[in-house]
Amino acid sequence: MPNKTTVFETRLDEIAQQMDVVLARLLPEPVGPQAHVMEAMRYAALGGGKRLRPFLLIETARMLGYESLGVEIAAGALECVHVYSLIHDDLPCMDDDDIRRGKPTVHKAYDEAMAVLAGDALLTMAFEIMARPEIHADANIRLKLLSSLAQASGTHGMIGGQVIDINAPHFSDDKKQDEELITHLQALKTGALINYAVLSGARLAGAGEDELMNLSAFSQNVGLAFQIRDDILDAEGDAVEMGKAAGKDAGLGKATFVSIHGLEGAKEKAFALGEQAKSMLIPYGARADILCAAVDFVLNRKK
Amino acid sequence: MPNKTTVFETRLDEIAQQMDVVLARLLPEPVGPQAHVMEAMRYAALGGGKRLRPFLLIETARMLGYESLGVEIAAGALECVHVYSLIHDDLPCMDDDDIRRGKPTVHKAYDEAMAVLAGDALLTMAFEIMARPEIHADANIRLKLLSSLAQASGTHGMIGGQVIDINAPHFSDDKKQDEELITHLQALKTGALINYAVLSGARLAGAGEDELMNLSAFSQNVGLAFQIRDDILDAEGDAVEMGKAAGKDAGLGKATFVSIHGLEGAKEKAFALGEQAKSMLIPYGARADILCAAVDFVLNRKK
Repeated sequence: MPNKTTVFETRLDEIAQQMDVVLARLLPEPVGPQAHVMEAMRYAALGGGKRLRPFLLIETARMLGYESLGVEIAAGALECVHVYSLIHDDLPCMDDDDIRRGKPTVHKAYDEAMAVLAGDALLTMAFEIMARPEIHADANIRLKLLSSLAQASGTHGMIGGQVIDINAPHFSDDKKQDEELITHLQALKTGALINYAVLSGARLAGAGEDELMNLSAFSQNVGLAFQIRDDILDAEGDAVEMGKAAGKDAGLGKATFVSIHGLEGAKEKAFALGEQAKSMLIPYGARADILCAAVDFVLNRKK
Repeated sequence: MPNKTTVFETRLDEIAQQMDVVLARLLPEPVGPQAHVMEAMRYAALGGGKRLRPFLLIETARMLGYESLGVEIAAGALECVHVYSLIHDDLPCMDDDDIRRGKPTVHKAYDEAMAVLAGDALLTMAFEIMARPEIHADANIRLKLLSSLAQASGTHGMIGGQVIDINAPHFSDDKKQDEELITHLQALKTGALINYAVLSGARLAGAGEDELMNLSAFSQNVGLAFQIRDDILDAEGDAVEMGKAAGKDAGLGKATFVSIHGLEGAKEKAFALGEQAKSMLIPYGARADILCAAVDFVLNRKK
């Protein structure tokens, strides 16, 4: 019997490949006088990324006994939102990053105007996709998926987190206050979409309110652990392995979980959050094996 | 009895005021650590603009005998998409404009990062609003409004038009080819949202397919007339009256309806399109008076 990690890795890889097929079909064919932006969208969205959010969406639905083409398409739409956020975050006026997923960022490979517009177009497309009947037969579930996607991505979600990140004061003298701020920041910036992935998978599978609350607690712990791991990698990592610039946050003098807790303290905190996340999945028994392995992956990933 | 123009102007003014109230309520209150982007959203969205798209949405519904709070809110969501497009189009990497609606553009009043994020947030918010039950009791109408908004704004709509505009070759030797390209460009860049305004008003009012097709022909003529008027104003206008830079397209050597047809030829073309638009409204008799006056306004506006 293969061990859990291997099963997980195979499955993560399968979903990443599946997402490339789904996204290639969903993205507009680069034809006509506006082909340029469509090429930039494909450049950004295809052939890279861990596809962690699609994975969480699809595997949450599957844990609850639900699989469908609609689940895959919803996962593709969610990934479009994630990719749009990366393109805009990489812009010179934001994080000014030249490398993403091991290749030049969109504004480097194309130009800034195409990067802004390709991001805008991917965000727009995500909502168009989520409204399609093939997502789910129940119109009210589609509407719930749409409005919660907008909330998770907006000023009280991902965009809000990016704004706080840009405007955040650097190290303060009060570590407790720093930690509260970066915990809130990350709950919005990366946590909101991770939470959305899990809850949307559950909603498509017909989960009730109690189940949604339990799974929301699971994904919030995963989201924070994911971010702490990011800070650890940023402190330890090298740019080649990560496929993006390393040591950047420390260089900017930003508060991170590592600057607050130290490297070992941050690792302990991430481990504890992972254990807490897994405890939420106990009711699902062996059906939760893949999601539990995903938690271990988040805690141990090298990039 | 007041003449039609006066009735129209009063109504346009009323809707503009109404939109300020609706948008002020819809936009997030600038509180919390991400208040900065919320202020930028309010700066861009409140207290300016003709609100032509909300006007067309609300007045189309009203012509068909339908008024509701949902119509106003849908008009507000549509205006958020329009405002987002202005913020991003004004960016240094796009049209690089410093003035909009008579005041500094968002990236001038704030900075580029806030301009990108405020635009992203307004677009995101538009979809969140359009999914709300108060828009219309019928979930399928809300989904149709949502997906058609994404289509009108995406790579086959507004974004596509902006991409063509950025990449369009300048004057060619072939005026016919130039005209085809700029007609297509404008049908996407400004036409798609004007068309959306009219069709959404009609859909909220419960219009059937035949009626939608007829009104679509109306709004396509209005949209093109609107753009030709823009080119005329750009050629004739002064920056103070228009509230934005004038003579810009000619200065860039871009093909416009004026460069192709001359000033008088462009005016004649706009007039003919206006007459064609009004002819689509004959079946509605006096109920179409306001929309007919709107056509005259589009043809004669000074900014």
